[in-house]
Amino acid sequence: MVSRAEFTLGQLAQALGATLEGDATRVVRGVAPLESAGPDDVSFLTDGRYRAAAQASRAGAFVAAAGITGLPAPVLRVAVPQQAMIDLLLLFHPAPPLHAGVDPSAVIADDARIDATAAVGPLAVIETGAHIGAGARVGALCYVGPGVEVGEGCVLAPHVTLLAGTHLGRRVLVHPGAVIGADGFGFAFDGARHRKIPQTGGVIIEDDVEIGANCAIDRATFGHTIVRRGTKIDNLVQIGHNVEVGEHSILVAQVGVSGSSRIGRGVVLAGQVGVADHVSVGDGALVAAQAGVPSDLEAGGRYLGTPARPLLEAKRIFAAESRLPELLQRVRALERAVEALAGRPLGPKAARDE
Amino acid sequence: MVSRAEFTLGQLAQALGATLEGDATRVVRGVAPLESAGPDDVSFLTDGRYRAAAQASRAGAFVAAAGITGLPAPVLRVAVPQQAMIDLLLLFHPAPPLHAGVDPSAVIADDARIDATAAVGPLAVIETGAHIGAGARVGALCYVGPGVEVGEGCVLAPHVTLLAGTHLGRRVLVHPGAVIGADGFGFAFDGARHRKIPQTGGVIIEDDVEIGANCAIDRATFGHTIVRRGTKIDNLVQIGHNVEVGEHSILVAQVGVSGSSRIGRGVVLAGQVGVADHVSVGDGALVAAQAGVPSDLEAGGRYLGTPARPLLEAKRIFAAESRLPELLQRVRALERAVEALAGRPLGPKAARDE
Amino acid sequence: MVSRAEFTLGQLAQALGATLEGDATRVVRGVAPLESAGPDDVSFLTDGRYRAAAQASRAGAFVAAAGITGLPAPVLRVAVPQQAMIDLLLLFHPAPPLHAGVDPSAVIADDARIDATAAVGPLAVIETGAHIGAGARVGALCYVGPGVEVGEGCVLAPHVTLLAGTHLGRRVLVHPGAVIGADGFGFAFDGARHRKIPQTGGVIIEDDVEIGANCAIDRATFGHTIVRRGTKIDNLVQIGHNVEVGEHSILVAQVGVSGSSRIGRGVVLAGQVGVADHVSVGDGALVAAQAGVPSDLEAGGRYLGTPARPLLEAKRIFAAESRLPELLQRVRALERAVEALAGRPLGPKAARDE
Repeated sequence: MVSRAEFTLGQLAQALGATLEGDATRVVRGVAPLESAGPDDVSFLTDGRYRAAAQASRAGAFVAAAGITGLPAPVLRVAVPQQAMIDLLLLFHPAPPLHAGVDPSAVIADDARIDATAAVGPLAVIETGAHIGAGARVGALCYVGPGVEVGEGCVLAPHVTLLAGTHLGRRVLVHPGAVIGADGFGFAFDGARHRKIPQTGGVIIEDDVEIGANCAIDRATFGHTIVRRGTKIDNLVQIGHNVEVGEHSILVAQVGVSGSSRIGRGVVLAGQVGVADHVSVGDGALVAAQAGVPSDLEAGGRYLGTPARPLLEAKRIFAAESRLPELLQRVRALERAVEALAGRPLGPKAARDE
Repeated sequence: MVSRAEFTLGQLAQALGATLEGDATRVVRGVAPLESAGPDDVSFLTDGRYRAAAQASRAGAFVAAAGITGLPAPVLRVAVPQQAMIDLLLLFHPAPPLHAGVDPSAVIADDARIDATAAVGPLAVIETGAHIGAGARVGALCYVGPGVEVGEGCVLAPHVTLLAGTHLGRRVLVHPGAVIGADGFGFAFDGARHRKIPQTGGVIIEDDVEIGANCAIDRATFGHTIVRRGTKIDNLVQIGHNVEVGEHSILVAQVGVSGSSRIGRGVVLAGQVGVADHVSVGDGALVAAQAGVPSDLEAGGRYLGTPARPLLEAKRIFAAESRLPELLQRVRALERAVEALAGRPLGPKAARDE
Repeated sequence: MVSRAEFTLGQLAQALGATLEGDATRVVRGVAPLESAGPDDVSFLTDGRYRAAAQASRAGAFVAAAGITGLPAPVLRVAVPQQAMIDLLLLFHPAPPLHAGVDPSAVIADDARIDATAAVGPLAVIETGAHIGAGARVGALCYVGPGVEVGEGCVLAPHVTLLAGTHLGRRVLVHPGAVIGADGFGFAFDGARHRKIPQTGGVIIEDDVEIGANCAIDRATFGHTIVRRGTKIDNLVQIGHNVEVGEHSILVAQVGVSGSSRIGRGVVLAGQVGVADHVSVGDGALVAAQAGVPSDLEAGGRYLGTPARPLLEAKRIFAAESRLPELLQRVRALERAVEALAGRPLGPKAARDE
């Protein structure tokens, strides 16, 4: 998406709280990474490792931390270049203006309450008793079920489904295809068939949570499934009924968390991780991609593998596995040597490897 | 979701076929688990393990099996508390009333047949020749393709997609975002490109099946992909073309079943299990989470791991893996000891571990 | 889906460029596999292994390669039966006719450009500046965002979401529920919270790509996420921001590719494979189901397991793992024997196995 903004380096220095080394009147019209930036772009080094790339870059200016010198264009010095990069991107790519109001093609229940500053897109459906807060955007073709609460400043992309019992806090961002509040998966076999356990609870999504495309976050059987504030969830993630995810955690794409598990605060579950039901993952734990978590994990730990083990132990096992075929041969050689030394067979177990 | 019903314990005893120990005129207004129940709620013990929690509960009444005594409020005695809990939940949370009729914003083909007792929600699309059976509900923003059959009492949540060739039996429940009847994944490389193999078959979903949010169940190349009656499918599950899933099976979230595989009756595939193509999983088999199934599994077996192995074998391997790094050291120590005893090296294989 | 076409074998021989052995006036009305074909169907043997099944088949005619003789009905001889089967299926199941025009219930921005030969289904939303090319089909309930380009002959099934910044080439086929162009998953922790890194790039899908149901293909942070021509993507696949997938690759269901990774040309990622971020998978590599790819893979290699290892090595490890519990016992037996021979314990490491 092309930016139509332009700024002088002086303006950018002021906006970023940066110290400018170079021509304050120089104009830039976009932000780009080192390799693709042209003379109209400001670029950035988030790390000293990129110095060589910066020296080869055609960028019109750079954002960099102190100590990175010899760059071929003016430099905006900042303390944390990655944060400054975000500030820059927000300057050049501001959120699109909010056109408050309800598209005439949307279908809105008479008693739904839609704040006058909210925007509802074409062909959205908003059911009885739902509430859309100030400045919120409901995208085209969204479904907002009976009594659902969409807090101030939330953004629902097109094709989002929020079912009855769902409460979104403020500034929650939900990507297309996400389904929040579908029934949890609970059945009791009565000897002939699986009877459905009615799922009577709801879902609470706290402030500043982001939920990826085509995720599924199920309602609780009783009470609420909860995602606490600041947590970011990637695409195609499954969160079962009665799960609680703590604040500021990261769930990468295709993670699955089974019912009633508790994911702590500041946890990272990398891609395709699976967490069994009724498991507790401690605050700050980091679980590497594809791990399977059958039981509780300690706070602050780093884990890998199925079943998930402490990272260093798992890495040692992975390394040892590579030598396993060789190890079998070495043990056979040992058995032969010991039998020769002893002048008799080692016993029945030793004979299996022929 | 708050219940607005209320019942005396006498009424509940009659409805559940329970024996009441306590005041039959006492009124309760909801069902809640032991920890959160208040004096207006009836709670339940599905298991004797919860006796201590029940003794600490503030619930106004309990559902429990015989032999669990000393509870601090009236008790409804039943044979199977978990089944009685379902009955209770259905009493307090009955299905919302069906308002038969087609929402005026829905787009319905002239020759679609919609039973007079069915309900079609806002902005649903129902194509030519489709049939919606008695008492069925088609949610908002659903797509029901040409010729699709939706049986009596089915419930399609909002945002469900049923493509041409899909037949749902009776009382099928489909959650939002599920896609049934998309093309199977079949191509033939012609030396330059992957040519698409037209997928000309359909999908049959039998009675009482439940299909989770954002699932994908593909049409067959020829004939039908089939999910037999009573099977329950969690969210984000993939079922490939020409798969057949037997009756009363359970497929937990994020399971994937590849083309032409047959899953038996009463099978459980736990979360994130993957089944290769043309594989047969026998009746009643239980496959633990994240397992990978490359080849046939026996009926009644319990399996774990990738590749899936019998449960006890897999657990022994997992346990042994933990000791693998130590084992490498022990074998090296043995080699040294044997070389010392023999007065000569063991040979080339033994030298690799230095 | 029942075919309503009928052809004589003479017509089919001409259409397929086949040599007919048998009655050219015989009429067939469908294509079916050997087991289910009846006298009105033409069937096919893609491989000599199916000769016995063919001899038992009731089919009215067969497509077969040279050398497969003794079949019980007329034979259409072709060089590559699988390709001929596709040709047959296309004859009997032609694409439904395109009824050009925009359904009156669709919501189209004034400045969207929709080719006069394109078709837009009911309740689709097409935003400002979008372009729908010649002969393209936009299904019911699709969302086509601002400025999106949908090339000539594309087919969007119902419920597809294309967000701003998405460009589809020609003849791209997108299945229901797929989301293209949602934000990549990028955050920078500022000490208190995860700040969102604005995702300012787009997505380019080249010609003849197929994208499965409920997939998610994220926009780039800068520049484009790219899927090159001829690549086929199954259901529920996740493709992160800035990924590039080469030409004619195959990504099977539930694969996940993390941000900035590059998948080569002609690669196969089997079901549930996960690829870490910033990884390169070489041209023609084949990665078996459920593998986890933490680092670069060589072109032309075959890989299996987590972490992905060369196929033969991984298979040897899998085989050796089965023997691991036994190996522990054998090593213990060796230690006892060596201690007996040496007349003293082996040392502290050896004592752990008691």
